[in-house]
Amino acid sequence: MLHARHIKHCRACGSEVDYLVPADDNRERAVCPACGTVHYVNPLNVVGTVPVWQDRVLLCRRNIEPRYGLWTLPAGFMELGETTEQGAVRETDEEAGARVELEGLFAVLNVVRVGQVHLFYRARLLDTDFHPGPESIEVRLFEESQVPWDELAFRTVRETLLRYFEDRRRGQFRLHTADIA
Amino acid sequence: MLHARHIKHCRACGSEVDYLVPADDNRERAVCPACGTVHYVNPLNVVGTVPVWQDRVLLCRRNIEPRYGLWTLPAGFMELGETTEQGAVRETDEEAGARVELEGLFAVLNVVRVGQVHLFYRARLLDTDFHPGPESIEVRLFEESQVPWDELAFRTVRETLLRYFEDRRRGQFRLHTADIA
Repeated sequence: MLHARHIKHCRACGSEVDYLVPADDNRERAVCPACGTVHYVNPLNVVGTVPVWQDRVLLCRRNIEPRYGLWTLPAGFMELGETTEQGAVRETDEEAGARVELEGLFAVLNVVRVGQVHLFYRARLLDTDFHPGPESIEVRLFEESQVPWDELAFRTVRETLLRYFEDRRRGQFRLHTADIA
Repeated sequence: MLHARHIKHCRACGSEVDYLVPADDNRERAVCPACGTVHYVNPLNVVGTVPVWQDRVLLCRRNIEPRYGLWTLPAGFMELGETTEQGAVRETDEEAGARVELEGLFAVLNVVRVGQVHLFYRARLLDTDFHPGPESIEVRLFEESQVPWDELAFRTVRETLLRYFEDRRRGQFRLHTADIA
């Protein structure tokens, strides 16, 4: 995902770029020697939900790489034209065929190694009529004691679930921020 | 900032791209007909702080476009290799020459029109030895009654400051999320 160096050609004119620090800048960018376009590469947001039905949490088993076959919360890259909330709802629909009502931002997790920020919202499932989308093999509700902790796809999913169940035991949900190594 | 259509050439091989919906996707992307590279364009994070010294808030007068001469909270695009927190501290140093200690995420504001998410942290100034960086004309501390409300550079700055003073009056800070038209 850290693909700053993947830029070889200018998106505006197709010339081969140089890597240098522009005059009014303080870090290296891909700069076009022909037309002057500076190519910025910045972190991406991954938006998702913790969808809950009564005391159970919905997880999706991944039908795609990376981490094929492992379990995840519904989440994916935020797109242009949507808010973080709309993206989280969209991903929950696309991956789990599930309709949810958001209940607040729950986790903001920095994953610097891959240049991502993961934002998870607590969400109330509106019904149990969910079904796996093309990117999921299976979608299921899990009680806390049933969560497949050793078969989770991502650290951010593990950290979010741990904090979710902890807050639920304490009877109060708050915003969690953390850096994931 | 909504520059999906600004991609004319493939970053990998320089060929002219086509705009189409890839087979396993559901929205239009710039796709290279020669090498197959798909070019994703996603929202960007802007990270900044509400730097406070006693009862005053630090603002910067912009030395750059857009909004040259208007006042803003220190903030800028999050970079690869840093967390949202590190980016907010860096921008506060670059724009205001100010050292801060962060006190929690305060506002997450979606600005869909420009494809941005603005994240502001509450911050305690460690000293008053600040000075304008190259992107600022002037840096000053303002009491609430002195804030130049009609000369603020951005809606997100206005919304963040309004919520900051409101929370302070109530004696409790919480996370604010909003969509800015």
